Amino acid sequence: MALIVQKYGGSSLESAERIRAVAERIVATKKAGNEVVVVCSAMGDSTDELLDLANQVNPVPPAREMDMLLTAGERISNALVAMAIESFGAHAQSFTGSQAGVLTTERHGNARIIDVTPGRVREALDEGRICIVAGFQGVNKETKDITTLGRGGSDTTAVALAAALNADVCEIYSDVDGVYTADPRIVSNAKKLEKLSFEEMLELAAVGSKILVLRSVEYARAFNVPLRVRSSYSNDPGTLISGSMEDIPMEEAVLTGVATDSSEAKVTILGIPDRPGEAATVFRAVADAEINIDMVLQNVSTLEDGTTDITFTCPRSDGPRAMELLKKIQIELGWSNVLYDDQVGKVSLIGAGMKSHPGVTADFTEALRDVGVNIELISTSEIRISVLMREADLEVAARALHERFELGGEDEVTVYAGTGR
Amino acid sequence: MALIVQKYGGSSLESAERIRAVAERIVATKKAGNEVVVVCSAMGDSTDELLDLANQVNPVPPAREMDMLLTAGERISNALVAMAIESFGAHAQSFTGSQAGVLTTERHGNARIIDVTPGRVREALDEGRICIVAGFQGVNKETKDITTLGRGGSDTTAVALAAALNADVCEIYSDVDGVYTADPRIVSNAKKLEKLSFEEMLELAAVGSKILVLRSVEYARAFNVPLRVRSSYSNDPGTLISGSMEDIPMEEAVLTGVATDSSEAKVTILGIPDRPGEAATVFRAVADAEINIDMVLQNVSTLEDGTTDITFTCPRSDGPRAMELLKKIQIELGWSNVLYDDQVGKVSLIGAGMKSHPGVTADFTEALRDVGVNIELISTSEIRISVLMREADLEVAARALHERFELGGEDEVTVYAGTGR
Repeated sequence: MALIVQKYGGSSLESAERIRAVAERIVATKKAGNEVVVVCSAMGDSTDELLDLANQVNPVPPAREMDMLLTAGERISNALVAMAIESFGAHAQSFTGSQAGVLTTERHGNARIIDVTPGRVREALDEGRICIVAGFQGVNKETKDITTLGRGGSDTTAVALAAALNADVCEIYSDVDGVYTADPRIVSNAKKLEKLSFEEMLELAAVGSKILVLRSVEYARAFNVPLRVRSSYSNDPGTLISGSMEDIPMEEAVLTGVATDSSEAKVTILGIPDRPGEAATVFRAVADAEINIDMVLQNVSTLEDGTTDITFTCPRSDGPRAMELLKKIQIELGWSNVLYDDQVGKVSLIGAGMKSHPGVTADFTEALRDVGVNIELISTSEIRISVLMREADLEVAARALHERFELGGEDEVTVYAGTGR
Repeated sequence: MALIVQKYGGSSLESAERIRAVAERIVATKKAGNEVVVVCSAMGDSTDELLDLANQVNPVPPAREMDMLLTAGERISNALVAMAIESFGAHAQSFTGSQAGVLTTERHGNARIIDVTPGRVREALDEGRICIVAGFQGVNKETKDITTLGRGGSDTTAVALAAALNADVCEIYSDVDGVYTADPRIVSNAKKLEKLSFEEMLELAAVGSKILVLRSVEYARAFNVPLRVRSSYSNDPGTLISGSMEDIPMEEAVLTGVATDSSEAKVTILGIPDRPGEAATVFRAVADAEINIDMVLQNVSTLEDGTTDITFTCPRSDGPRAMELLKKIQIELGWSNVLYDDQVGKVSLIGAGMKSHPGVTADFTEALRDVGVNIELISTSEIRISVLMREADLEVAARALHERFELGGEDEVTVYAGTGR
């Protein structure tokens, strides 16, 4: 008997009809002889509707009250799924995050899970029940206040529960049926991956794949919880994410896929005195404002006046705030200018095969050259190459790379055979 | 410094705009130097929408899940009101029923309050905060499951909190501005009452006044919590409900008003053997089905065959179920027939003045005779007379009684001067 944790996203629960379809699948999983724990997001757009209401009553709502408000959405879908399951003849019991033992830090709106003590869930499973747990929420260990886990919180709840219950797999259901070698809306012959390692999925999530949030993958990797990305509209087995890339035999080492991201903006600071500590001043100021920095480039100082330039990328949504605070300290620190550019896009190639196959960077840059795409910034990890370019070039670049590294086609997973990195 | 508990109904919270208006009133109460605890119902029709969704996923939803579902509504309005209050510059903190210490029995859907331990609310008040408590909900003391208090549950929450916090008054806000001598839709010169006793309000609530549920008035009376019925749309002081009718000086003893009720049906059982225990059999059967009986009449046995008839009224919504079970036992018990009539209406006259002023019953029956209304059943209490009639006669009867006892007009409260009961 396997223990399966299933997480259903909002689009899978947007109507009574969809909820019944989900319930049918859950009951089938149970009747196949498994123990089942289900984590639900809020129905469809209901979270956005609550945010809109909040904004109408108070444009800067207190975070504690925001958490009280938003967690109502998951409780609604949770109870409805439990009811639907009962109508299919199985026994269900719903749990709030607090009842399921999801203990968090006290930071409202973006709490971190400290511990999961699912004693009541385990008991209900032992009584033969299907357990339905409200995602995205927990309870602050100290003050017993209700907290939320921030973006992708329901995925994180599911993974954390799976880890605490020692589940065999955590299935993440949404309206997409797996992880692809590229965004199928951009690359028409993008191919679904059967399997990839945690590291590869981490890199994909980090560079713009929306399919799983980085945090839930980090959690799954840390506790070695196999993830399966599946569609709630089909019976396709989806994509399995498990194991370290170290476990993949060298001959099978592959390039996983191409990811695109047009959510970032580029900030360039000109005329920074070229002496120790200047870069730190910039990044401390940005970090204090809780703005995440992605790519960073500092030019070699070749200017006669002994200054240098620093370029970094950050989320576009934080761009105006970043500019405001940098403009404030520009004069004090003697920079000549701060420039802002939100017409940029990022293409990344990810794959454990990169480690063992030289020449990937050469092939990568040649592919972009051949389609006339100019590279503005490059950053790499052991299993990833990312390049910043004009946003308008994003799609042509993605298609060129997907083609060059033979990621599409009909084969299951294309093994990369590079020609020198 | 007074401690005021305010309860706002769903219609007072149906939109962001209404929520802001309510918040403004709450903040004004606080700034006038009071401590304020607020109990909120769910927004507008949101409870009905949740019920509708539940019905779509499972026509017979499990009660525990129904409670989990429905309590989300109060949490939403609660958080929104807290946010709106903050936007007016006061400090608010919201509490679930559980956080506010509302401990109940475990009967889902219709739990009773066992105890209220509002330690956290008291602490927040001491810190100068306005406390917002989700109405209608509590937590089962044993299993820590979320429960709901049934119809009028938010009123009950407000009264129970007021009692536990030793509040000076519990204000019940809705879209009506007080308790009237009759339904103004039926009796055009119905007059708002300034004040009435708990007993009078209990009788009014028991015979069809929708303004407060019986249970919350019983609770208020038991703990001597003054209630004030007010409109959230005006600054009218509304109607104060407090004190025993024993406290009202005899000369001021008044008739409070006329109430109408067309929600009942009449059941008549013919040919019941006239021997001890037969009536008990009938009422035990009905009670076991959890059907509330209101008026009862057993005829004096004058029939030659030694049988009698029993007539009772019960909620129309329970009528078909009552008939089904009585028809089942009719043959076994040898009754000649069971009749059902849902075209009946009930008019009641309530007032502590009745006790001390004889002749009220005579005036009452004469008033109905003068407008040609036939009486089918009469029942009385110390301060109430109720009469069952054709439903079609209800309005004409209410107007005739209101007129006869001079309940309308411009005087503050009309003192009844009867002519012999």
